[in-house]
Parts: sequence; structure tokens; C-alpha cells
Amino acid sequence: MTVSGVVERKLRDSFARQSIMTTFGVTIAEIAPGRIVLTCPILDLARQQHGFGHAGLAFTVGDTAAGYAALTLMPEDAEVMTAEMKINLVAPSDGDRMIATGRVVKAGKRLAVVTGEVEVEKAGVRTTVAILQGTMVPILPRP
Amino acid sequence: MTVSGVVERKLRDSFARQSIMTTFGVTIAEIAPGRIVLTCPILDLARQQHGFGHAGLAFTVGDTAAGYAALTLMPEDAEVMTAEMKINLVAPSDGDRMIATGRVVKAGKRLAVVTGEVEVEKAGVRTTVAILQGTMVPILPRP
Amino acid sequence: MTVSGVVERKLRDSFARQSIMTTFGVTIAEIAPGRIVLTCPILDLARQQHGFGHAGLAFTVGDTAAGYAALTLMPEDAEVMTAEMKINLVAPSDGDRMIATGRVVKAGKRLAVVTGEVEVEKAGVRTTVAILQGTMVPILPRP
Amino acid sequence: MTVSGVVERKLRDSFARQSIMTTFGVTIAEIAPGRIVLTCPILDLARQQHGFGHAGLAFTVGDTAAGYAALTLMPEDAEVMTAEMKINLVAPSDGDRMIATGRVVKAGKRLAVVTGEVEVEKAGVRTTVAILQGTMVPILPRP
Repeated sequence: MTVSGVVERKLRDSFARQSIMTTFGVTIAEIAPGRIVLTCPILDLARQQHGFGHAGLAFTVGDTAAGYAALTLMPEDAEVMTAEMKINLVAPSDGDRMIATGRVVKAGKRLAVVTGEVEVEKAGVRTTVAILQGTMVPILPRP
Repeated sequence: MTVSGVVERKLRDSFARQSIMTTFGVTIAEIAPGRIVLTCPILDLARQQHGFGHAGLAFTVGDTAAGYAALTLMPEDAEVMTAEMKINLVAPSDGDRMIATGRVVKAGKRLAVVTGEVEVEKAGVRTTVAILQGTMVPILPRP
Repeated sequence: MTVSGVVERKLRDSFARQSIMTTFGVTIAEIAPGRIVLTCPILDLARQQHGFGHAGLAFTVGDTAAGYAALTLMPEDAEVMTAEMKINLVAPSDGDRMIATGRVVKAGKRLAVVTGEVEVEKAGVRTTVAILQGTMVPILPRP
Repeated sequence: MTVSGVVERKLRDSFARQSIMTTFGVTIAEIAPGRIVLTCPILDLARQQHGFGHAGLAFTVGDTAAGYAALTLMPEDAEVMTAEMKINLVAPSDGDRMIATGRVVKAGKRLAVVTGEVEVEKAGVRTTVAILQGTMVPILPRP
């Protein structure tokens, strides 16, 4: 199963308009129905006090992957908004590159329940640094 | 009650080493025992697809305020790490300036439970855009 | 400000139909717009392995208080459902009586963001044992 | 890999002392390292206003499965306590039997990050009704 051309264009346009994605150097690695993979370098401008990637970076990329995963299962004219998101940080973001995978657990009419996993790659080895669980809301154009 | 000079220096040093704070233009507005206020402009580089501040910005500033609030109540040689954080977004970050207040609900030996509130100011009016609830862990130097 | 008679009756009827409330001996202590207080004894049937009230009891009573708090601000024909809820446990439920206060942070058309606080009373002293933050959804009759 | 006899006995003893498990008719279906399955009927005493299993039931069983999953990976003399838990409810608990699976994502020295999935069986068909994500803390005997 693949994502329709309309949905993929909508998703890529929306992503391109998010300046924070450019700031963090995030790119789209994979678009599939109910599943999005984003990736970025861990830039010098996104670090915490020990030089690791900031929790806010892991949140931003993980939340965005989860949101766009939900968008792939929404009506073609819908946009998506995070209602709430929870992140558990399980290891420091010590590495060169971050990979965030968003998945849809349940796509409802009014809400989508999503999860995310954020990994960091260092010298070719991937470690899970955070998991996320949250709720996305479809925003439909006023009739 | 005030925060000791040692703790305040430790906190300001830690904050200064977080490059993501510089990226987002965050500054410390208030340091009190169990309470930290951070503030930042909503910069062009931190926006989502509609031009509002990104959820990742609200998370980053809210989480950091909550973490340093916990740090004010920890032993003088402790550092702080986010174990987990949950954010509910209640309004778009539509404004010029973001203000995040972190508070400690319970400061335990092994964990601190914290909350955060993120507001946005537009034309002098403040609106709550997000609330956070999470857990901070003190990191103590090895004996 | 008070809650309308229609809303109060709807709330009390709904509460009475929840068998788990009877099981745990929960009663309604206060109904106000955007604020509900529930209380219950900590019964022998609701304990964890050390004889304290189970986390599931604190969750059940806290979540229900938060849900009905949201219901007070919804349209008169709406029902309420928990979309998601997060609980941080800050102390053991060591006492005779539990008091849960639910509050509404933001009552939107499609979602309500709520918080809860659960306290336990022992020999007349109240201690906060848990805080909650979550999302309630109004369920409206089909037109 | 299996769980040691000492850990299994500790887990079963702890479970047997939780009166709320007896109240809800919960039994242990599976014990494996980092994975626990609990099951229970949806009793008349644990329902919400529409006759479905209460969110508090799903939370209680899911949280307990997740906690004991963490316990299987802790030192033999440790006990376990929930620090925080988040639940997203994705469908009503409409069925005869509830099955909760707890899993460990990361077992650290000071914290374990866990997830849970709660399913309901109706006429032989299983539906996921809730997912959980949280933090467990090992409690060690004072030296």
C-alpha cells in the first residue's frame, strides 16, 4: 500500500513550511501509510549542556514524525495538529544522526493515537533514545 | 526564600552550555526555589507550517524551565535530566514572545515531579498555549 | 457561577451508572463549573501489595473527577470520554480517605484539557499522592 | 530465557497481596523476562456508565502488567513502584475478557521504561482498547 500523490504532496508542502525542520536539518526518509521516518544530523545548535542532542530535539523530530504518520491516514483535505504528546527519554542523544519513526496505532475520525521512536546513530550503531505516545487531531477545512 | 549562590551559578552555567537555548533566544527571567521562568521571542526559525511557534519550541522551553526548577531543590553537586515529560497543547503559539514557568510538585531523593506552563504574549495579552507534567532525575557525581 | 440543574442531573445519573464507583465507595463531594471533587474510603478491596491504595484506585478516582469536571462545561446533551490521561504518583496512598479534585484547563469544542489532584487523608492530615493531566472528548448525540 | 524461580516467587507473592487484583479477578497468564501477560473477566463491578469496562480497569491491569514486566529484570531483592504512567484509550472495553501485556523498553539501574497494551476479547475477537507508556522505579532494601 502506498500513500496517494495528493497526500504525499500535501505532506511534503506542509513539512517544507515548518522552519524548525530547516533549522534542525530534518529530512523525510520514508513516507508510508501510517508510518513516517524523519532523519537529521545532531547539529551543534541543538545540544544540551553535555553536548548531546537536546530532549527538545528528540521531541520535535519524534512528534513531527508521529504527526505526519497520522496525516497519511486522514482525509485528503485534512491537516494535522498535536493535541498531546508524551516522551520517555531512555538514553542520551550521543551520536551523529537522529532517526525518528512515527506510527499510527488507531486512526479515528476525530483523533489519531500515535507512537514514535527516536534513535541515534553513532559510528554505525543505532540506539533508541526516546519513545513517544500521543494524540493527533485532524483539522478539516470549514464547509 | 532564595536559591543559594552556588546553585544559581551551577544553573546559569548549565543553561549557558545548552546551545539550543541560544538558537531559540531563550533567557532566564526568574530563578526561585522550585520555580523557574524562561522567556524567548518566537523566532522565524522555530515555526510550524502555519507560522506559529512549533510544538517542539513550547516543549523545549517548558521542559527546560521544569528541569531547572527541579535543579533548584536538588543537592548542590547534582545535575538534572528529564526522565519523561508530557505536554498538552491548548492553543496555537500565535504571538511575539513565549514565557515558560516550571514548578516542582514533589522533590524526592531519586525523582522530582514537575509541571510547566507555557504562555504566549501577543500585543500585550498572554495566553496559555501548553501545560506540561513530568519527571526529573538528579544526576550526582560518582562518589 | 453554578452548574445548571440539567447538567447536574446528567452528571449524577452518569456517575450512578458507573458500577466501579460503587465498588470503590466513591461519592461526589462537590460540583462546580469546571471543578469536581470526589471522595472515597481506601477500602480493603482496592489495595496494592503493601496495603496502600493501589495506583489504579488513584487513577480511577482522579480520572473520573477530571472527566466530570469537563462535563460541566460541555453542551447539555454531551457525554464525556477520556481520550488519554497521565498520572504521576508522588507518595503512597497511605491513609483512610482519598479526595480527588478534577479541573478544566481548557474547554474546547472538540477536546477538553483537564488536570487532577489526588490527596489522601490520614489522621486529619492531607497529602498529595498523585497528579494527573489529560484530555477529555465530548460525545454528542448523532443529529 | 526464563525468569528465575526466586523472581517468579517474589512476583507471584506480590501479586497475591494486591487485593485489587482479587477484586477485579485478575490472573497471571504469562511470566517471561521483560514481559508479563495478565487477564481478567470484565466484571459487573468494574464498569462505566455505558456498561463497558471502566478506563480505571484498563489502567489498573495495564499498569500492573507493565510493573511486573519491569520487576522480572530487576535485582532479586527489588520491589517495583509506578513513578508515572500514561494511557491512551483507543476503543471502548466492550467484551468479556481483558488481556494486558506489559513490556520493558529499557531496564536501567534507577528507572525502567515500560509499555503496555490492553486488549478486550468479545466472541473470540480481540481488539486493542488501550496503550500505556510509563516509568517504574526499583525499590531496594536499605543496606
